[in-house]
Amino acid sequence: MQHLLELVASGKLSVEEAASKLSHLSFEDIEYAHIDHHRSLRKGFPEVIYGQGKTAEQIAGIMEKMLPHENVIMVTRIDEPKAKHILSLFQDAVYHQRANMIVLQKQPIQKQGKGKILVLSAGTSDIPVAEEAALTADAMGNDVESVFDVGVAGIHRLFNHKDLIDQASVLIVAAGMEGALPSVVAGMVSRPVIAVPTSIGYGVSLGGLTALFAMLNSCSSNVAVVNIDNGFGAGYIASMINRL
Amino acid sequence: MQHLLELVASGKLSVEEAASKLSHLSFEDIEYAHIDHHRSLRKGFPEVIYGQGKTAEQIAGIMEKMLPHENVIMVTRIDEPKAKHILSLFQDAVYHQRANMIVLQKQPIQKQGKGKILVLSAGTSDIPVAEEAALTADAMGNDVESVFDVGVAGIHRLFNHKDLIDQASVLIVAAGMEGALPSVVAGMVSRPVIAVPTSIGYGVSLGGLTALFAMLNSCSSNVAVVNIDNGFGAGYIASMINRL
Amino acid sequence: MQHLLELVASGKLSVEEAASKLSHLSFEDIEYAHIDHHRSLRKGFPEVIYGQGKTAEQIAGIMEKMLPHENVIMVTRIDEPKAKHILSLFQDAVYHQRANMIVLQKQPIQKQGKGKILVLSAGTSDIPVAEEAALTADAMGNDVESVFDVGVAGIHRLFNHKDLIDQASVLIVAAGMEGALPSVVAGMVSRPVIAVPTSIGYGVSLGGLTALFAMLNSCSSNVAVVNIDNGFGAGYIASMINRL
Amino acid sequence: MQHLLELVASGKLSVEEAASKLSHLSFEDIEYAHIDHHRSLRKGFPEVIYGQGKTAEQIAGIMEKMLPHENVIMVTRIDEPKAKHILSLFQDAVYHQRANMIVLQKQPIQKQGKGKILVLSAGTSDIPVAEEAALTADAMGNDVESVFDVGVAGIHRLFNHKDLIDQASVLIVAAGMEGALPSVVAGMVSRPVIAVPTSIGYGVSLGGLTALFAMLNSCSSNVAVVNIDNGFGAGYIASMINRL
Amino acid sequence: MQHLLELVASGKLSVEEAASKLSHLSFEDIEYAHIDHHRSLRKGFPEVIYGQGKTAEQIAGIMEKMLPHENVIMVTRIDEPKAKHILSLFQDAVYHQRANMIVLQKQPIQKQGKGKILVLSAGTSDIPVAEEAALTADAMGNDVESVFDVGVAGIHRLFNHKDLIDQASVLIVAAGMEGALPSVVAGMVSRPVIAVPTSIGYGVSLGGLTALFAMLNSCSSNVAVVNIDNGFGAGYIASMINRL
Amino acid sequence: MQHLLELVASGKLSVEEAASKLSHLSFEDIEYAHIDHHRSLRKGFPEVIYGQGKTAEQIAGIMEKMLPHENVIMVTRIDEPKAKHILSLFQDAVYHQRANMIVLQKQPIQKQGKGKILVLSAGTSDIPVAEEAALTADAMGNDVESVFDVGVAGIHRLFNHKDLIDQASVLIVAAGMEGALPSVVAGMVSRPVIAVPTSIGYGVSLGGLTALFAMLNSCSSNVAVVNIDNGFGAGYIASMINRL
Amino acid sequence: MQHLLELVASGKLSVEEAASKLSHLSFEDIEYAHIDHHRSLRKGFPEVIYGQGKTAEQIAGIMEKMLPHENVIMVTRIDEPKAKHILSLFQDAVYHQRANMIVLQKQPIQKQGKGKILVLSAGTSDIPVAEEAALTADAMGNDVESVFDVGVAGIHRLFNHKDLIDQASVLIVAAGMEGALPSVVAGMVSRPVIAVPTSIGYGVSLGGLTALFAMLNSCSSNVAVVNIDNGFGAGYIASMINRL
Amino acid sequence: MQHLLELVASGKLSVEEAASKLSHLSFEDIEYAHIDHHRSLRKGFPEVIYGQGKTAEQIAGIMEKMLPHENVIMVTRIDEPKAKHILSLFQDAVYHQRANMIVLQKQPIQKQGKGKILVLSAGTSDIPVAEEAALTADAMGNDVESVFDVGVAGIHRLFNHKDLIDQASVLIVAAGMEGALPSVVAGMVSRPVIAVPTSIGYGVSLGGLTALFAMLNSCSSNVAVVNIDNGFGAGYIASMINRL
Repeated sequence: MQHLLELVASGKLSVEEAASKLSHLSFEDIEYAHIDHHRSLRKGFPEVIYGQGKTAEQIAGIMEKMLPHENVIMVTRIDEPKAKHILSLFQDAVYHQRANMIVLQKQPIQKQGKGKILVLSAGTSDIPVAEEAALTADAMGNDVESVFDVGVAGIHRLFNHKDLIDQASVLIVAAGMEGALPSVVAGMVSRPVIAVPTSIGYGVSLGGLTALFAMLNSCSSNVAVVNIDNGFGAGYIASMINRL
Repeated sequence: MQHLLELVASGKLSVEEAASKLSHLSFEDIEYAHIDHHRSLRKGFPEVIYGQGKTAEQIAGIMEKMLPHENVIMVTRIDEPKAKHILSLFQDAVYHQRANMIVLQKQPIQKQGKGKILVLSAGTSDIPVAEEAALTADAMGNDVESVFDVGVAGIHRLFNHKDLIDQASVLIVAAGMEGALPSVVAGMVSRPVIAVPTSIGYGVSLGGLTALFAMLNSCSSNVAVVNIDNGFGAGYIASMINRL
Repeated sequence: MQHLLELVASGKLSVEEAASKLSHLSFEDIEYAHIDHHRSLRKGFPEVIYGQGKTAEQIAGIMEKMLPHENVIMVTRIDEPKAKHILSLFQDAVYHQRANMIVLQKQPIQKQGKGKILVLSAGTSDIPVAEEAALTADAMGNDVESVFDVGVAGIHRLFNHKDLIDQASVLIVAAGMEGALPSVVAGMVSRPVIAVPTSIGYGVSLGGLTALFAMLNSCSSNVAVVNIDNGFGAGYIASMINRL
Repeated sequence: MQHLLELVASGKLSVEEAASKLSHLSFEDIEYAHIDHHRSLRKGFPEVIYGQGKTAEQIAGIMEKMLPHENVIMVTRIDEPKAKHILSLFQDAVYHQRANMIVLQKQPIQKQGKGKILVLSAGTSDIPVAEEAALTADAMGNDVESVFDVGVAGIHRLFNHKDLIDQASVLIVAAGMEGALPSVVAGMVSRPVIAVPTSIGYGVSLGGLTALFAMLNSCSSNVAVVNIDNGFGAGYIASMINRL
Repeated sequence: MQHLLELVASGKLSVEEAASKLSHLSFEDIEYAHIDHHRSLRKGFPEVIYGQGKTAEQIAGIMEKMLPHENVIMVTRIDEPKAKHILSLFQDAVYHQRANMIVLQKQPIQKQGKGKILVLSAGTSDIPVAEEAALTADAMGNDVESVFDVGVAGIHRLFNHKDLIDQASVLIVAAGMEGALPSVVAGMVSRPVIAVPTSIGYGVSLGGLTALFAMLNSCSSNVAVVNIDNGFGAGYIASMINRL
Repeated sequence: MQHLLELVASGKLSVEEAASKLSHLSFEDIEYAHIDHHRSLRKGFPEVIYGQGKTAEQIAGIMEKMLPHENVIMVTRIDEPKAKHILSLFQDAVYHQRANMIVLQKQPIQKQGKGKILVLSAGTSDIPVAEEAALTADAMGNDVESVFDVGVAGIHRLFNHKDLIDQASVLIVAAGMEGALPSVVAGMVSRPVIAVPTSIGYGVSLGGLTALFAMLNSCSSNVAVVNIDNGFGAGYIASMINRL
Repeated sequence: MQHLLELVASGKLSVEEAASKLSHLSFEDIEYAHIDHHRSLRKGFPEVIYGQGKTAEQIAGIMEKMLPHENVIMVTRIDEPKAKHILSLFQDAVYHQRANMIVLQKQPIQKQGKGKILVLSAGTSDIPVAEEAALTADAMGNDVESVFDVGVAGIHRLFNHKDLIDQASVLIVAAGMEGALPSVVAGMVSRPVIAVPTSIGYGVSLGGLTALFAMLNSCSSNVAVVNIDNGFGAGYIASMINRL
Repeated sequence: MQHLLELVASGKLSVEEAASKLSHLSFEDIEYAHIDHHRSLRKGFPEVIYGQGKTAEQIAGIMEKMLPHENVIMVTRIDEPKAKHILSLFQDAVYHQRANMIVLQKQPIQKQGKGKILVLSAGTSDIPVAEEAALTADAMGNDVESVFDVGVAGIHRLFNHKDLIDQASVLIVAAGMEGALPSVVAGMVSRPVIAVPTSIGYGVSLGGLTALFAMLNSCSSNVAVVNIDNGFGAGYIASMINRL
C-alpha cells in the first residue's frame, strides 16, 4: 500500500485505478471459497484445508489452485476414501491415517523452529488428536517428539520421560476424560504448555467439555487451551511460539 | 416386627393394636421435624443436624430432643454466631471454626473403624471441606490423618507423603479447580478413594461442577464421588467402609 | 527403589545405571499402549481392557501381551462380532452378552472379598449396567448376588428383598430415569452404597445426568457415585471396599 | 358478545358503538397493571397478587381496586415488613409467615372441592413451599391436610401415613435434593400427583433443576410437575382438579 | 395384609409362613421383568408396556403373561416392524401408526371418565405425541376429542374451537418450538391443563427443553407439565383426573 | 368482520348465521394440517412449507391445495430425492440444491422491497444457510446480493466489499464458529443487521449456541438475531423490513 | 479517504503525512475510553453511554467530552444516586426512573422515523425493559406508543389493542416467563417484530434464557431477537428499521 | 537428586539419611500452606499469591516467609482495604488499584523477555483484566505495551494501532461480550495470541462463557485461551513464551 501511495503521489496511477487495485489486490475467486495467495507469505506458514464437510473434488480443486503458490499443503479431518482420491491426483501427497491428515510438500520443509516441541497424550484413544498436533508442528518446520499413553492414573510412567519433558521448549498435552495431565506436566516445567482436550470419555465427559473446563482451571499457570480435539490448532500455535 | 407378629400369634396383642403400634413405633413429633430416636441404633452412627437455613433456636431445639438418646451429635454448616449460641447452651459442645461444625460427645467416642482414614486436599482453599470430612470420620470412631495442600501442580509434595498414602485403608481426597488429585492418588493405591469436589475456583470452575465431572471421569477406577463441598458425606461413607 | 539405592550404596551399581534402571523398570512398549506388567501385583486386581473404540485385533494384541502375567483378564464394552473374534483366539475367554463383557480366567478366581456384594437395579433397561458391575465384582473374587427390576414406582417389590439387603456388606444400585432407588436403599442400611446412574430414560433424563445429579443429592449420606453407565467402576471400587 | 350482537341486530346499538364497547368491556386501567374484574367470575377462583418485586404500596393499591369485586384475595411471596404494612391497612388480612403469604377473606370460603387434597413434603426445608400449596388450596375452598418431613431416606415414616395417602383425591408432593418422593408416593396411589420441586439442596441440586428433572422422569405415570418452588401453582391446579 | 394378620392371630398361619407369604404375594418372575398381576386391580387401569429398547419377542412374552389378568394392554413406542410381529400373534391387537402404539382390548372398554378430555396440538409435527395422549385416554375409558394444528402463530384458528375448549373437563396441550399454546389455552379456561412439550423444532429448541421450560414458566397457573414427548403420561394422569 | 356486523345491523344476516360464518371463515381441513387460504392476502407474502419431517407426498398434497390461491410457494429443508418427486409433479418448481429449497412461482415475482438486501457469510460451510436467506428474500420480491467467505480471520477480504456493504438497506450475516462477523459488519453501517448463527464448528461450537450467544452479545446495537441455521427466517424478516 | 488520496495525487500532501493523517483521523484519547466524535455523523444516531459499572464521575467526564459534538446523549442502566449527580451537573438532562435512563437533548429531537413504533409488554415486571426500549426509540426521533401488561394468559386484553397493533410499522415486544407474547403478536401482523426477553420469572426462567429460547423458536417468522433485558438494543434497531 | 545419589554412591550419605533428605528437601510447613522455597529457582519466575479468600494477615504471613528467598512477589485479586494493610507492612510493595494487584520487588526486575508483549482490550470494562495481564508480564521481566478499548464494533480504531500490533512478539487480547477481538487480531499477525475472556456483559454473556467459547472457536488458529478473567495466567504464559 505504501508502494501504491507512492505511485499515486508520482502521478503514475490515477486515484480511481488505485482504489480499484486495492480492492482486487491478491484475491481470486473460485466457486466455493476465496483463496488468498499471499497468505503463506503474510502468515509465513503453509496453507491448510479443513477437510470435514468438503467433497474430495472440492478439496482437490482448492489444492490445485494453491499448488503453484505453496510449498506445503495440509488437509485435516479427511477420511480414507477421500484421501485415496486425493493421493491418486497428487503424487507428493502423503496420508497419515491415525491423524486423518494429508501432508503434501514439494520441497523438504525447512526447520524454522528453535527448540523441540514435545507432544504428550494421556490415553491410547487420545493418539489421533496428539498425532494431528505432531504432524502439524512437523509440517511447519519443527523438531517434534511424541510420547503417548502417559496418563495420571499411572503417573510413574510419565516420570520415566522426565528428561524429554525437561528438554522441550514447547509442550502440547492431549487428554480426554478428567483432563488432568496438562496440570501435572505444567507443574514440572517452566515452559509454555498447550493443552488440547479430547472428546474421549463417556458419561459426564460431555464430549470433551469436562476435560476442557478442567484444563482452563489448571492450578498451573503456564497452560493455555485450544478447542476440543483441535490438534491442528495446538500444533499451529506451538509452531508460532517455537519460532520466537 | 418379628416380635410384634409373635405377640399377635400368641393372642397377646389384638390385630388393631398391632397395626396402631406399628404406626407410632419410635416417632415423636416436634414442630419442625420428625426425629427418629431409633436411628442411631438402626444406623449405628451419631445423629447429624444440617445447620444451614435453620435458626440457632431450631438447632438447639432439635439437639435437646436428641440429647437423651444419643452419645454424639454433630451440627454441620453452622457459622460462628449461631455456634456461640449453641455452645452457651450445651457445655459439651465444641466448635470447629474452619469446618463450620459443632461436635458434642457425652462419652469418649469408641474406635470402631479398622484401618486409618487419610484425608488429602489439593489447595489451602479446600481445607474447610477436607476438615469437615476429617471431623466427621473422627466423630464416627475412626483413626484419621490429614495432609493439606498437596495439589498436582507441585506433584513432588504429594510424593513426600507416599508412606502415609500407602498405609491408609480408605482415602478421602478433596479438590477444586481441575479436580485432578483423586485420579493421581487413586493410581497410587489399591484402596477405595472417596473424592469430594469443592466449589473452589473461578471462571469455568462452575461452582465445582468442573471438578465434579473430572472426578467422575477419573481414569482410575477406584474412585467414587460425593456431592460438591459434601465433606460430611465423604466422612460418613468412608466411616461405613472402614467398619467392614 | 530402596533396593536400588542399596545397590548404589554398595557400589554394585553405578549412578548412571541406577538412573537408567529406574527409567525402564517394568515397562514394555507395544504399539498402541504401554502395559504395566506389575500392575496386577501393585494393584492386586486383574487387568481390564476398555473395548470401545479398539479393534478386535488391538484387543487381542493387548490380551496376548498380558496373558503370561495375569490370571484374569476382562474386556468391557465389547460387542458380539468383536467378542466372537476374541473367543476364537482365546479358549478360556467367556462372553457375557447382556453386559457386553469378556472374562478370561486361567485358574479359578480366589475369593478375596469378605462379605456379600448385592447388585440392585431399578428397571429392566438398567440390567446391562448392573450386570457389568456384578461380573466385575465376581471376577475380582467376591460373593455377588443380583436383584433386578425393583424400582421405586412399585416399592413393595423392593421390600420383598429386605433380607438380602440387610445381609449385604456393600451394595451397588443402578438406576436411570429419576435415579431415586439408591436413596431409598441407602436409607434402609448402614452399609456403603455405590450408586451407578444409567443413561436410560428420555426427555429430560439428559443421557443420565438427571439420575446422576439426583444420586449426588441423595438425602442419605451413605451413597457415593460413579460415572453414568460405569458398571465396571462400581464393581471395581465395591471390590476394593469388600477386601478391607 | 351474543348479547351485543343481538342489540346490533335490533338496531339498538350502532356498529361503531358495538366495536367500541367490545374494546372497553370489563377493563379498567390503574397505573401498574390491568386488572380484570371479571376474572374471578370467569375463572371461578379468587384473585392472586404475586408480591415479589412489588412495593407494599403497589400491592395495597391493587388490593384496594380488587376488594369490591372479590371475596378472597391472596398475596404470595411477601416478606414480613411488607406484610405488616398490608395488615395495618386491611383488617381482614392474615399473614402466614412460613409461607410468606397473605390471605384476605371477606366471607368464610365456601367448600367447592369434592375430595381431600393431601400435601406431603420431603424435608423440613421444603415446608415453606408445601405450606404455600396448602394455603392456596385451602383459600380455594378445599379440604386440605399436610404431612411434612417424610422423605425417602427414612421411607418407613412415609408408610406410617398410608391411610391418609390412600384417602386423598389429589396429592401435592414437594421435594428438593434428589426429588424422589413424588415417584414413591405416586406408586402407592391411583390418584393424580402434582409434584413441586424445591430449590433446596446444594452442589448439583442446581437450584432445584435436579429435583425438577427427576420428577419429570418419574417412573410413575400419574405425576405432573409445576415450576420450582411454585407451591401456589400446585395448590391452584390441584384445586381445579378437585372440583371436577 | 389385614387378612394375613387375622390368619396369624387365629393361629391358622404360622409366623414363618406369614413372612414367607408376604414375600411371594402376587409376584411372578419372568426373565426380563417382574410383572405385578395385581397392578390393574390396585391401580384400576390397564397395564402398559414401554416398547422402546425391547425386542418384539420380549414384548410378546410380557403380553402373554399379562393376557389372562388384563382386559386392556397397551404398548407404546413400538415401530411398524415390531408391531406387525405382535399383530400376527394377538388378533385383538390394533396398531396406531401415527402414535406408534398398540392397543389390545378383550372386552369393550368401559367409560369411567366423567367429562370430556380435549387434546390440542400446536403443529402438524406434534401430532404423534398428541395422538399417543388421546389413545391412552381413550383406552382408559374416557370420552376424548382432538384438534390438531392450532398453534399461536395463527391464533384465530384456536378461537374457532372455543366451544370445544369451554366444554372440556381436562385439557391436554402438546406443543414444540416455543411451547406457548398451553399458556394461551389455560388462560381461556378454569380447568386443569396438562402440557406436553414435544421435541419438535431446531436450533435452540434443544430437543424440547425450550418448550418444557416455557410451559413450566406459564403465566397461567392451571398448567402442570409432563416429560418431553410423554404423550402417554399426559393421557394417563388426565384419565386419573377425569375419574375424580 | 366490520362487513359482517353491517349485514347483521341491516338484518340481512341472522345472529346465528353470523356466528357460524365467523367460525368457518376461510378455513379448510385437509388431513395433516389446516391451511389458511387467506394468509397470503393477510400477510402479503407467499406461503412456505417446512419440508423436514414431511414426506414428498404430504408436501405435494399441501402444494396442490395452495396452488390455486398463491403465486409463489416455497418449500424449505427438502433434500434432493424428495425434491425430484415434487419437480416431477409441478413443472414451475425449481430446486436450489445448496439451500435445500424449492421455489415455485406462477408469475414473475413483483419487486416490493425498496432497497437492496445484502447477504454475507463467514465461511464456505455457512453458504447453505446464507443461500436459504438470499432465496427467501428474492422470492419475497427483493433486490438481493450475496458475498460469501468473508470471515473475520482475514478481515481485509471483508473490506474489499465495503461499497456493497454501504449501499445495502438491510444486511443478513450468517456465521458459525465464534460468530463474530455480524458485530464487525454492524459496526460499519447504520442499517439493521439480521444475524443468523449457523451450526458450523466443532468442540465448543455447541451446535451453533456459541455463535448465537456471541451475536446476542454483540457490542454493536444494530443487530437482531434469529434461530440457529434459520436462513429462511432471516430472509423473511429482512423482507418485511425492506418494505417499510 | 478519497479526499486524502486526491491531495496525495495533487502533491499537496506527502506520503508520510497522508499515512500519519489516516492514523490520527478523528480520534481523541481520554483516560477511560476512546471517544469517536464522528460517530454521531457516521452512525446518524445520538451517542449512548452504558452506565453500569461506571462511576458517576466517569459518566460525567464522558458526557462533557461528548457535549460539544452531540445533540442527544443517553445514559442507560444508571441508578438514582448516580443520576442525581449527573442531573446536578447537566441541566438539560432528564432522568427516567422506571427505565433507569438519562436523556439529555440540547435541541428538540427531529422526527426521522417514518411510521409508528409500538412497544408491548407481557407483565408489569417487564415494564422497565419495555420503557428503556420506548425511550430509546423516542430519543432517536420516532413516534412511539406503548401498551403494557397484555400477556397471553388473558389474551383478550391483547385483542383490545388490535387497531394499534395493525397500525404500527415496527413492533417491540418485551416478555419474561414463557416468552410467548412475540409469537402471538407476530402472527397478527405483517411487520417486523423485535422481541426482547426479560429476566423476569423464577425457577426455570433461568434468568431469561427460557424466554429467549422460546422467542428464537417462534413459530412466526417475522420475529428477530435481542439479548435478555436489552431494551436499549431493541429501541435502537427498531429505529434503524423505521428510517428505511 | 543426581547429587544426592552421588553422595550415596561415595558412602558419604547413608541410605536412610538420603531417603529422609529427599522427603524434607526444600519444604517448610506454615499453618495455611506449604511454601516451596525452591520454586522461584525451579520455575525461574517470581512467586505469586492468590489473594481472594485469604485474609490480609494470611497474605502478610506468606509474604514474610517468601521474602528472604524471592526478589519479586505478586499478590493478585486483592482489594483496597487488604492492600493498605500489606503496604503498611512491606514498604517496597506497590498497589495497582485497577488491577487489584500488589507487586513487591526488592531489586529492579531484570528484562528476560526477548520481544515486546502487547496487551489489547475490547472495552473499558475489560481494562482490569487486561491490566492484570500487563502487570504480570512486566513483573516477569518483559517489555510490555497496552492499548485499551479497541473492540470490533469500531474496527477502524484497532487498525490505527496496526504498527504496534505488527511489532509485538506475543499478544494478549482481553474481551468480554461476544469475544470477537482475538479472532480479528490473530488474523492480522503470525504471532501467538493469548486470549482472555472476561466476565463482562449481560444476558447471555453467561459470566464470560460466551466469550470463552467464541475464542475457543476462533477461525484463526494462532489463538490459545486461558480461563475467564484470568489476566494473571495470560501474562504468565506470555512471559514463558517470550523467553524462548
